Amino acid sequence: MTSTVPSSVDPAEIRDVLDGRWAHVRRDARDNLHDEEFLPVYGESVLQARERVTRMAKKLADSGRVGLGFPKEYGGQADSGGSVTSIEMLAFGDLSLMVKAGVQWGLFGGAVQLLGTKRHHDAYLRDIISFDLPGCFAMTETGHGSDVQQLRTTCTYDPETQTFDLHTPHEAARKDYIGNAAKDGRMAVVFAQLITQGTNHGVHAWLVRIRDEQGNPMPGVTLGDAGPKAGLNGVDNGRLTFDHVKVPRDMLLDRYGQVAEDGTYTSSIGNETRRFFTQLGTLVRGRVSVGGSAGSATKLALDIAVRYGDIRRQFAAPGEGREIVINDYLAHQRKLLPALATTYALHFAQGELVSQMHDVQTAVHEHGEEIDEAAQRELESRAAGLKVAQTWHATRTIQLCREACGGAGYLQENRLPHLKADTDVFTTFEGDNTVLLQLVAKGLLTGYRDTFGSLDGWGRIGFIADLVRETVLERTAARGLIQRLVDAVPGRDDDVPMLDRGWQLKIFEDREKHVLEGAIRRLRKNAATDGMKPFDMFNDVQDHVLRTAQAHVDRVVLEAFVAGIERTTDAGAKALLEKVCDLYALSTIEQDKAWFLEHDRLTPTRAKMLTATVNQLLHELRPHMITLVDAFAIPQAWKATAILREEHDRQEAMAARDAAVRAEAEGAQTPSASATDLEVAPAQ
Amino acid sequence: MTSTVPSSVDPAEIRDVLDGRWAHVRRDARDNLHDEEFLPVYGESVLQARERVTRMAKKLADSGRVGLGFPKEYGGQADSGGSVTSIEMLAFGDLSLMVKAGVQWGLFGGAVQLLGTKRHHDAYLRDIISFDLPGCFAMTETGHGSDVQQLRTTCTYDPETQTFDLHTPHEAARKDYIGNAAKDGRMAVVFAQLITQGTNHGVHAWLVRIRDEQGNPMPGVTLGDAGPKAGLNGVDNGRLTFDHVKVPRDMLLDRYGQVAEDGTYTSSIGNETRRFFTQLGTLVRGRVSVGGSAGSATKLALDIAVRYGDIRRQFAAPGEGREIVINDYLAHQRKLLPALATTYALHFAQGELVSQMHDVQTAVHEHGEEIDEAAQRELESRAAGLKVAQTWHATRTIQLCREACGGAGYLQENRLPHLKADTDVFTTFEGDNTVLLQLVAKGLLTGYRDTFGSLDGWGRIGFIADLVRETVLERTAARGLIQRLVDAVPGRDDDVPMLDRGWQLKIFEDREKHVLEGAIRRLRKNAATDGMKPFDMFNDVQDHVLRTAQAHVDRVVLEAFVAGIERTTDAGAKALLEKVCDLYALSTIEQDKAWFLEHDRLTPTRAKMLTATVNQLLHELRPHMITLVDAFAIPQAWKATAILREEHDRQEAMAARDAAVRAEAEGAQTPSASATDLEVAPAQ
Repeated sequence: MTSTVPSSVDPAEIRDVLDGRWAHVRRDARDNLHDEEFLPVYGESVLQARERVTRMAKKLADSGRVGLGFPKEYGGQADSGGSVTSIEMLAFGDLSLMVKAGVQWGLFGGAVQLLGTKRHHDAYLRDIISFDLPGCFAMTETGHGSDVQQLRTTCTYDPETQTFDLHTPHEAARKDYIGNAAKDGRMAVVFAQLITQGTNHGVHAWLVRIRDEQGNPMPGVTLGDAGPKAGLNGVDNGRLTFDHVKVPRDMLLDRYGQVAEDGTYTSSIGNETRRFFTQLGTLVRGRVSVGGSAGSATKLALDIAVRYGDIRRQFAAPGEGREIVINDYLAHQRKLLPALATTYALHFAQGELVSQMHDVQTAVHEHGEEIDEAAQRELESRAAGLKVAQTWHATRTIQLCREACGGAGYLQENRLPHLKADTDVFTTFEGDNTVLLQLVAKGLLTGYRDTFGSLDGWGRIGFIADLVRETVLERTAARGLIQRLVDAVPGRDDDVPMLDRGWQLKIFEDREKHVLEGAIRRLRKNAATDGMKPFDMFNDVQDHVLRTAQAHVDRVVLEAFVAGIERTTDAGAKALLEKVCDLYALSTIEQDKAWFLEHDRLTPTRAKMLTATVNQLLHELRPHMITLVDAFAIPQAWKATAILREEHDRQEAMAARDAAVRAEAEGAQTPSASATDLEVAPAQ
Repeated sequence: MTSTVPSSVDPAEIRDVLDGRWAHVRRDARDNLHDEEFLPVYGESVLQARERVTRMAKKLADSGRVGLGFPKEYGGQADSGGSVTSIEMLAFGDLSLMVKAGVQWGLFGGAVQLLGTKRHHDAYLRDIISFDLPGCFAMTETGHGSDVQQLRTTCTYDPETQTFDLHTPHEAARKDYIGNAAKDGRMAVVFAQLITQGTNHGVHAWLVRIRDEQGNPMPGVTLGDAGPKAGLNGVDNGRLTFDHVKVPRDMLLDRYGQVAEDGTYTSSIGNETRRFFTQLGTLVRGRVSVGGSAGSATKLALDIAVRYGDIRRQFAAPGEGREIVINDYLAHQRKLLPALATTYALHFAQGELVSQMHDVQTAVHEHGEEIDEAAQRELESRAAGLKVAQTWHATRTIQLCREACGGAGYLQENRLPHLKADTDVFTTFEGDNTVLLQLVAKGLLTGYRDTFGSLDGWGRIGFIADLVRETVLERTAARGLIQRLVDAVPGRDDDVPMLDRGWQLKIFEDREKHVLEGAIRRLRKNAATDGMKPFDMFNDVQDHVLRTAQAHVDRVVLEAFVAGIERTTDAGAKALLEKVCDLYALSTIEQDKAWFLEHDRLTPTRAKMLTATVNQLLHELRPHMITLVDAFAIPQAWKATAILREEHDRQEAMAARDAAVRAEAEGAQTPSASATDLEVAPAQ
């Protein structure tokens, strides 16, 4: 269905589509974030990295680019989407600085803003924004990462002293991996079990001072250092242990739960689990930022590998003198182009997610509306699913780009090692990816909860069921358009051309439905099996359950891409994006080809045709590879990559002087190897 | 066909099978390589790392464990297989030291030994073994890595002065990524085009002094530093440029090609390309070592992740108090167990390869026999294929283990970041993996060369054709046994149980044949297409060609596993290995399930049964996970992993004191989450 792509497409036209709703924030970063110190530095010690990044964080605060997400009355712009977008742009620089910013203004500042009330805002927000009050977000414990409801730290109210007693009962309950804890943090938002009048009301958050002005630990607070990490060594991750630390009553961040002087607990949200999820829900911004930042790192890695592949030559064409640029090899295109297409698809999905988050949070925190729990749940599920897709895609793609640059990709001066090491943790922080996929799946399954009624283990999350039912196959943006495309698919699937967008959408949707229903059937069967433990009922189908989440995310991403193309006005840009979308859709189907064959969605003949069609798309997209990375509009100054500076000169020098060399050899014939006649160098 | 596995299997019995032919070398390392300084150090600067590793290299030389591969008359043991095995054991320690050793005693020393003659051996081998003469292996150039035959550096003989003129014609011809070049190297084996009497005789090697005793560069030699790398920062990789450097005639490593005083060139190998390949062929040892070292790093990573997963708990089972150890989750088993099974399979294949290499090299270099070129080609193809399989498996598996340990896996103190960063380059050095796969495929295709006669681009490598024809489906060890198993497969495939080893072997073999024949059909078709350029004829099917190599390697690896089991005497160990082999075979088929469905080797019903069977195997192997890593017999002292020391105590502390905490809360009910009711912590 895609029209032919003109030989030359203006990358600026594509850039404008990618920039989307917060284009002004992206432009501002490209035009003004040119401080060389924001770029990564290599070979420094952990100490040096921390010092530098602390300085940079202050510099960033002074630039006034960190407050977007905060209320206007404290110098912010009440622009939730803008704040996430600015973090995404920061991720093109030193990722330690991005994470440091995320900790200070996203997690720490965000928690004070969203879980605290006016007295906390008045007292602290300005200093938080200016980085005069560096802080920590102390949730995870050594013994409990993903399972936040099970945190062991306690905070017990004593009416006598009008204070809380914050305590770490044992080593496994120490707060761990906490950013800003090892060096800079002065205060911390600490999550613990709130106990008053002998009752545990579940996890709440307190604002606790951990260091005095001189930087010495406060009484009862033990500070630890997580030490050197695989990457992000500019961030001072540490550990916090509390030995019966006294916390004033008014330091409870009490937006969703209050404790009176006499210790009486009150909350607008009766159900405890619901209250817990509501508090966590306000913190979705962090997870959205990680997904977006992973996207930026992926774009930069692809920018480097694609440009390198366009100038790097290996092996002469048989019977010809010319050596082949490696982007001309099918195997190289097979690596880079599907990754590039997926990066585009995820970019559009991310844009939709940020918009959705912005609207939900603005309604509540700016216009003071009631939380729309359906929208909130959908937002959290979408944020979880995309964080998984973005971060695993980043890990895979950056690795692939590293290898595509050979030995040069292993040198720090070429940036890829840094991108790889720094983004690695993204797959397990802000929620372990596997656990998050399960969260997405749960959302889909609970939509069907009624169908497996009394199945134990699902009972408890009943209150979510009605809220997320509609998330199953709920339409993404451009609902109408997608429905039209799907409905327009003619005749039997086998006859439909694979480039028919409607067929692609239909088969993604069909897989999601089928996989989900299959998982439910199996869960019901297990539920009906005598003597099967609830855990085993679930664990027996865990791989199937995770697959439902994967299929769901794939569908959401494809629909976002289609919606993005719809917004494209320039004909050339639109035609090129259509091709890229075809490649994303078909290479995604190709990856899961076994499923489609197994479930008779593809005949063997059509499956073979699929591979041929993907190769044909690679062939058609090859001439546009550079355009597609140009469209990311990454300023030259942000790339700081030696090979891109040197390689081109080298190639020219080599070509120019080879003649001379041969002359030097007085008509000697150099033995010539060919691209089909390979021998390989031992290592260095 | 596997018998039931006893509830407890003695890991020592499995270890003995894994240790194989060079068990004595492995035992010696386990018993004696306990110098703490051989372990990695974290957070040090590049300078510190280099200093330490240089010291350690000297210490290693003094231990007398580096000479195994050298001739007895120079203090070696003429044990080629033993030398590779000792490098493999070294890889459990600091990988920078392993690579430094590989450069000094494998590549540099190996080249002097195998390409040089008695006068070179007498003059240098003792000092090389003792590390009094640190050296470089200078082959790769900035502009030419994989395509060694195209090296641009020239070495031109001048009868007047009886010297060679070694010259770097332009920047792209500088030697790059050279180990020992930035700091320690005194001499280098330099590869360049040999030109004499106006004729270029192709790439040869010279032994060239690059630094004087004080460490200053020799006249005309420019030394560069590759700077900080993603890992292996203890190795001083650098760059070498030669400006008309005079090299004495007798410094040509002239085993395969000699230049007389008057400049007359002579060689026992007439064909130039053949001579070139023969010289490279002697250097296969390096590639074999990288594969083995990747295997060691993978075992250590799995050892860490499997033990962590056995004590780490997350989420309570629904309706029960107990929290689940993460190894009990199906999704976690799906990650770790197939990787573990593949690691076993590759270990057996590696053992076979080392034996093969030892026998081929001993025949030539010890017993002075003629090179058996068939055996040599087969060895090179096997070495290339296994290097690819081992290093990509290492990259994937170490990443997976990092993620399986969550945030803890990101801390240097837990070893995984170091394993990941240091092994990363293995996929592109000693030959880029994609290029090596192509080399393997070429070997298979040339075996069929006659069938596509005049196809240009294949013509030149004709001389290999007859030599490698038999490598297609040539049997690995235990030929007879495997043939018997395959022949014994009863009836139609659909009826055969999937645990029938014969069926597994047959379907691997069948896929290899079919994919290969398909590639050849397509190549012939392209060759017959008018106006198609030779490069396009080949490039059009490159993905298919690479697949043939992959299928070949999979088959070779499975057959090696089967042969290894055959050598197992202990009944329990044998039964367990049979299960592990089933998992390797079936999860490998599962990964390529689409192909088997597409080509009607699996019915949809049987494909679904395959997934169920794999899950069943995971269930049966779960109780043996620890035994399977115990069998790697990695000494406790080599692990140096904080989580393995701390986690167990933590878990106990937590369990023990949770009661007390609850009491403290005076009968408060802690809200309980369940494994099926997930919520996830934002990041730190």
